Amino acid sequence: MSDIRVEAASASYTVHVDRNLLASIAERTAPLARKISQVFIVTSPEIDRLWGAPVRNGFETLGKRVTTLLIPAGESHKRMTTIERLLEELAQHGADRDTLLVALGGGVLGDMTGFLAAIWMRGVPFIQVPTTLLSQVDSSVGGKTGANLAAGKNLVGAFYHPLAVFADLDTLSTLPPRELRAGLQESVKAGVIRYPQLFAFMEQNAEAIRNGELSVLQPVIEDSIRMKAEVVEADERESGLRMILNFGHTVGHAIEAATGYKQLLHGEAIGWGMIAAVRLAQSRNLLDEATATRITKLVHAFGPLPPFEAEAQHLVTLTGSDKKKRSGTLSFILPTSIGTVDIVRDVTEAELLTAVETMLAEMRTANAVTA
Amino acid sequence: MSDIRVEAASASYTVHVDRNLLASIAERTAPLARKISQVFIVTSPEIDRLWGAPVRNGFETLGKRVTTLLIPAGESHKRMTTIERLLEELAQHGADRDTLLVALGGGVLGDMTGFLAAIWMRGVPFIQVPTTLLSQVDSSVGGKTGANLAAGKNLVGAFYHPLAVFADLDTLSTLPPRELRAGLQESVKAGVIRYPQLFAFMEQNAEAIRNGELSVLQPVIEDSIRMKAEVVEADERESGLRMILNFGHTVGHAIEAATGYKQLLHGEAIGWGMIAAVRLAQSRNLLDEATATRITKLVHAFGPLPPFEAEAQHLVTLTGSDKKKRSGTLSFILPTSIGTVDIVRDVTEAELLTAVETMLAEMRTANAVTA
Ligand SMILES: NC(=O)c1ccc[n+]([C@@H]2O[C@H](COP(=O)([O-])OP(=O)(O)OC[C@H]3O[C@@H](n4cnc5c(N)ncnc54)[C@H](O)[C@@H]3O)[C@@H](O)[C@H]2O)c1
Ligand SMILES: NC(=O)c1ccc[n+]([C@@H]2O[C@H](COP(=O)([O-])OP(=O)(O)OC[C@H]3O[C@@H](n4cnc5c(N)ncnc54)[C@H](O)[C@@H]3O)[C@@H](O)[C@H]2O)c1
Repeated sequence: MSDIRVEAASASYTVHVDRNLLASIAERTAPLARKISQVFIVTSPEIDRLWGAPVRNGFETLGKRVTTLLIPAGESHKRMTTIERLLEELAQHGADRDTLLVALGGGVLGDMTGFLAAIWMRGVPFIQVPTTLLSQVDSSVGGKTGANLAAGKNLVGAFYHPLAVFADLDTLSTLPPRELRAGLQESVKAGVIRYPQLFAFMEQNAEAIRNGELSVLQPVIEDSIRMKAEVVEADERESGLRMILNFGHTVGHAIEAATGYKQLLHGEAIGWGMIAAVRLAQSRNLLDEATATRITKLVHAFGPLPPFEAEAQHLVTLTGSDKKKRSGTLSFILPTSIGTVDIVRDVTEAELLTAVETMLAEMRTANAVTA
Repeated sequence: MSDIRVEAASASYTVHVDRNLLASIAERTAPLARKISQVFIVTSPEIDRLWGAPVRNGFETLGKRVTTLLIPAGESHKRMTTIERLLEELAQHGADRDTLLVALGGGVLGDMTGFLAAIWMRGVPFIQVPTTLLSQVDSSVGGKTGANLAAGKNLVGAFYHPLAVFADLDTLSTLPPRELRAGLQESVKAGVIRYPQLFAFMEQNAEAIRNGELSVLQPVIEDSIRMKAEVVEADERESGLRMILNFGHTVGHAIEAATGYKQLLHGEAIGWGMIAAVRLAQSRNLLDEATATRITKLVHAFGPLPPFEAEAQHLVTLTGSDKKKRSGTLSFILPTSIGTVDIVRDVTEAELLTAVETMLAEMRTANAVTA
């Protein structure tokens, strides 16, 4: 069991990583809140059925009234209309300023519940109980909360931290293997941008990690969280260092947009995005071929990354509308070795187009081979 | 001209109070923002027609692209659906993280624009340009932003401060007199809870203030802002001192709810609420009769407070669901002299009922006399 502290500018909290955590969440949370008038568990029907009972029982044992608010699974529900409905439900159940919200589920539920906590009566406490690999290693830490607009992903939100994060490894046992593998791309990213020892460990234990063996998965999760915590501590609001977390994400987001957020999982799109960034780094002579190969190999080790249909130029156009763009200048995070990156601010459209074309060509070749 | 500083825990900014301010807003704002990619003025069609041009021209003179986003006037539009529509419009116009929002209008527009700024891309800068008396003396200062739910007023929101506030006294020239008078109840409140010299000044100059003469209105506005700034500086998040600002608001909110937020203006409801609080303070022997009379007289000096139909018991029930309630205990701010209040936490329903009945009886008598 590991307790990882996050000491951000606006809040400090612990990320607990362990098996069999759910039943003790209530007890561990109670001392962190000034007062808890009642508890709302925000989750999906499936996750509630699988993992809701121990969390609910824990709070009920403490004598708390617990209400479960359900959101159907899926990114398509991460919208303001869902937020508004949940706000009205909180009101109907008499939620007040001492209400505790519990985000039980993957990143979609975590992002939305955090945002709900941020804006209900201008802010009430909440805890994160991430149940996907992606949400354990990435989305539940760092305070980014929010929802999507019709116009784009995560365009609305708040920086708002939980009282604590409880990453129960047991919950991963019911996660579809494809979700597990996709989430691992964020751990590959963590290794590439800052943690060479994590990268090497993932290379050495790729097969067991891929199969979800907890003895090797646990250190991967813990290191990924540590990496993210360090970065967020140094730069909570993404004015500097935190940008490195976007490695693979600029092209990744474009792929998600081009495929309507349906065909690929987030982590899979990021996998392709990391490959495109590696090709861009190589074309700039920032990265040697041997290292480039190590990265693309580890990305594919947690594949298969599903192929998709998109024009290179269309993807490049979509990166231009990525919200990471600041008034015209597009920043790219490019690896310079395993564990280090450069923030490159003058990437031309032509350069990016070539890198994306290379990535697409590799995808088509691989696909032709396996087809 | 006065510049009043607000040094809150999470932000510092200046409230400029003067005539002829609108044209210089752009120039004064530019140095406060890291960078301004484009500007959105959020206002209503009427206010845009009356006061939009100088603000827009100022930013255009600085070479900024300015877009005006319109919301119809009125509390009924202070809703999440309006917020969502505005968010989508920001996206359609290519708003990014360096976008500046300008709230031009009364408290409804200020609260919503501030909330929009708080959640668009997890926070962009905004300025307040309050054009009602209420928004100049109260809502534009202190960082409370938000919207209403079907279930209740201001249930959703964020603490989020502007870069600056520009209270242009000229804009009050087009404000309906009833709106001016209603807003002045918040200045009466400021005097009662903390500024005896403001209270005395308002007594001495009631007629001229009521008529909107700027020579006397300006010091009233400035003192009201100073009072609010002091309180917010001491307690940004309303965990202690800031609660005193709720004097008159518990019963006031109940009256607004009982009358469907339509019959009375906010300030008028607060006027009645202050009278109820005064009667409660007297029944507890916290306040002598002479002082009580001074307060109710000054409240009525900025009337007429419209009479309304409501059962005392219904109003008492509605105060119980007021969001200021913390897990069952209802706090009341009761005056003990001109300039001092007590936070009383053990008001019984019976006591409150008597005070509300007294207030209603006074209303009916006055109404019978004038009718
Ligand atoms: N806040 C951040 O910093 C941040 C970072 C990265 C990603 N995100 C967001 O996270 C979201 C993606 O998160 P995700 O990958 O967890 O997706 P998700 O929340 O959609 O979960 C994936 C699927 O797994 C199911 N599921 C979850 N836990 C399960 C379990 N234990 N057993 C069985 N099924 C389970 C869910 O119902 C869902 O169908 C995106 O919206 C993305 O924008 C946020
Ligand atoms: N954030 C806070 O701390 C805080 C404090 C108090 C009140 N409020 C909120 O403020 C709102 C009430 O604000 P308000 O009283 O300013 O009401 P408002 O914004 O509805 O404005 C009142 C009316 O005056 C019109 N108007 C505004 N400026 C004008 C001008 N210069 N000339 C002509 N017409 C003009 C408006 O169009 C509207 O019809 C409520 O929603 C309340 O919840 C917020």
